[in-house]
Amino acid sequence: MPTLEDIRQAATELEGRIQRTPMLTSSALNERFAADLVLKAELFQKTGSFKVRGLLTKLLRLTTEERERGVITVSAGNAAGALAWAARNAGVPATVVMAATAVPAKIDAARGYGATVELVGGDLMAQYERIRDERQLAGVHPFDDEDVILGHAGLGLELLADRPDIDTVLVPVGGGGLISGVATAVKLMKPAIRVIGIEPEQADVVSRSLAAGVPQKLLTARSIADGLAAPVCGTRNLPLIQQYVDDVVRVSEDALLEATRLVMSRTKLALEPAAAAPFAALLEGLRPEGVTAAVVSGGNLDVAKLRF
Amino acid sequence: MPTLEDIRQAATELEGRIQRTPMLTSSALNERFAADLVLKAELFQKTGSFKVRGLLTKLLRLTTEERERGVITVSAGNAAGALAWAARNAGVPATVVMAATAVPAKIDAARGYGATVELVGGDLMAQYERIRDERQLAGVHPFDDEDVILGHAGLGLELLADRPDIDTVLVPVGGGGLISGVATAVKLMKPAIRVIGIEPEQADVVSRSLAAGVPQKLLTARSIADGLAAPVCGTRNLPLIQQYVDDVVRVSEDALLEATRLVMSRTKLALEPAAAAPFAALLEGLRPEGVTAAVVSGGNLDVAKLRF
Repeated sequence: MPTLEDIRQAATELEGRIQRTPMLTSSALNERFAADLVLKAELFQKTGSFKVRGLLTKLLRLTTEERERGVITVSAGNAAGALAWAARNAGVPATVVMAATAVPAKIDAARGYGATVELVGGDLMAQYERIRDERQLAGVHPFDDEDVILGHAGLGLELLADRPDIDTVLVPVGGGGLISGVATAVKLMKPAIRVIGIEPEQADVVSRSLAAGVPQKLLTARSIADGLAAPVCGTRNLPLIQQYVDDVVRVSEDALLEATRLVMSRTKLALEPAAAAPFAALLEGLRPEGVTAAVVSGGNLDVAKLRF
Repeated sequence: MPTLEDIRQAATELEGRIQRTPMLTSSALNERFAADLVLKAELFQKTGSFKVRGLLTKLLRLTTEERERGVITVSAGNAAGALAWAARNAGVPATVVMAATAVPAKIDAARGYGATVELVGGDLMAQYERIRDERQLAGVHPFDDEDVILGHAGLGLELLADRPDIDTVLVPVGGGGLISGVATAVKLMKPAIRVIGIEPEQADVVSRSLAAGVPQKLLTARSIADGLAAPVCGTRNLPLIQQYVDDVVRVSEDALLEATRLVMSRTKLALEPAAAAPFAALLEGLRPEGVTAAVVSGGNLDVAKLRF
């Protein structure tokens, strides 16, 4: 299990390379939810989401030999840009395997940061493994990795550094990467804090894994909150979630849509539906205690879809 | 013509009542446009747009007798919430005449701030005048008013207080309220500064008024940038625009749409299309000199329309 010392060390390595994202308040949201909310505006992070924290930590810790070979990851879209950015920042060549059907803006983002993008059809994982082995690249998992978890945990340090009075933390949940890191950090610093994860009803692999006691897989995981539609829960993430997360609640697609619109209209933050998950839970009746931090995890909207 | 003293006095009256909105930078936008941009994030203003500046100035300066009678305005939607908020802040009863077909969220916003909303059919102006006269209310024009202009001018003071090195200011243009105030303030403080207005090709009443030398009216003024679709140029605004604005350029609907998506995706600000007008001009080839402030004038998107 990671220690606070491990987490602080990873945060030190990221200093000056990533954004120190702000904590914002909204009297309109506090009124609407009869709550005392602070929003961790992680959508202002490099590449528009928290993902660079863990991925950059991972890349900075590669061996010289791994750095020279270069890294490879597989992504339905969201992790691609973050990995590509982190690779450029760390000075490591990167290859990203994406489905040929991925959103063009996400393909362009990865290419824009200098990554080699391989667009493939058929079984994404099989193609990824083939290319990785053929080119002898170092595989990087976007969340099921100890260094990635340590990097994400830095967000938890920032929460309590800025607002030591936080009583509850609400974290969107996909495969468990972000929440396993954040929960570990805040509980080690302040054991009385409550950590609640929120995942879509239609992509609830972490809830199912907690119920089963072992990581589960979903055959289909589709949600308007595409950033949370992970088909698997990480084997390294689940034990930390079991240890440090108080509850994981599930939210409907309707609540995710309404929450995205509500938060955007009240705060003028262009958050993605995944980042609205904490507010979807509030809409569906969650009543968190005391000062409540909501992690606004990203803002990577598919803007080509937006109509005005 | 307003003096710098007048503008500073109005700004003092607003102190503590409105937000001091931040200036933001975006390396992605600077790269995209080969420019040195600073964004005045006025979408974080109370009610989500600059409009409260001038309207609150106006309401704070009413006579005791006018305050007791209450105020009335007419709005297609955007000024309604701002007037209602300002009236509550100033402690003045407010009535807003709106078309029965106005966006429900805008009607709700005005009611939420405590205004009496009169939904009418037919000729909006005729109905407004009837209600105003019947109830002996003080009419408030959303831009063609000296106090409103002075209030808006405060935004110009903030631009140069935060960034004295600004060389060019890009301002979205509707009926001329915001730009007449901002241009007056910045030119009085720094005569060498350039002020460029941007208005939609499909709602170009200020360009037409400048060409004609007198305020013009448009029979139709429809744009995706609904906040800029004013059918008239203010009689008090035009002389200030003639005196202090260097150029007004027109942008296409396509550029407004593309600019809104581009700025939202790069900055994660949920700006409305009106606020993207400066970037639409950059997309269409405008090359401003030096440090360039772009006024991101508001973020009142019709979120019910957003699909993700």
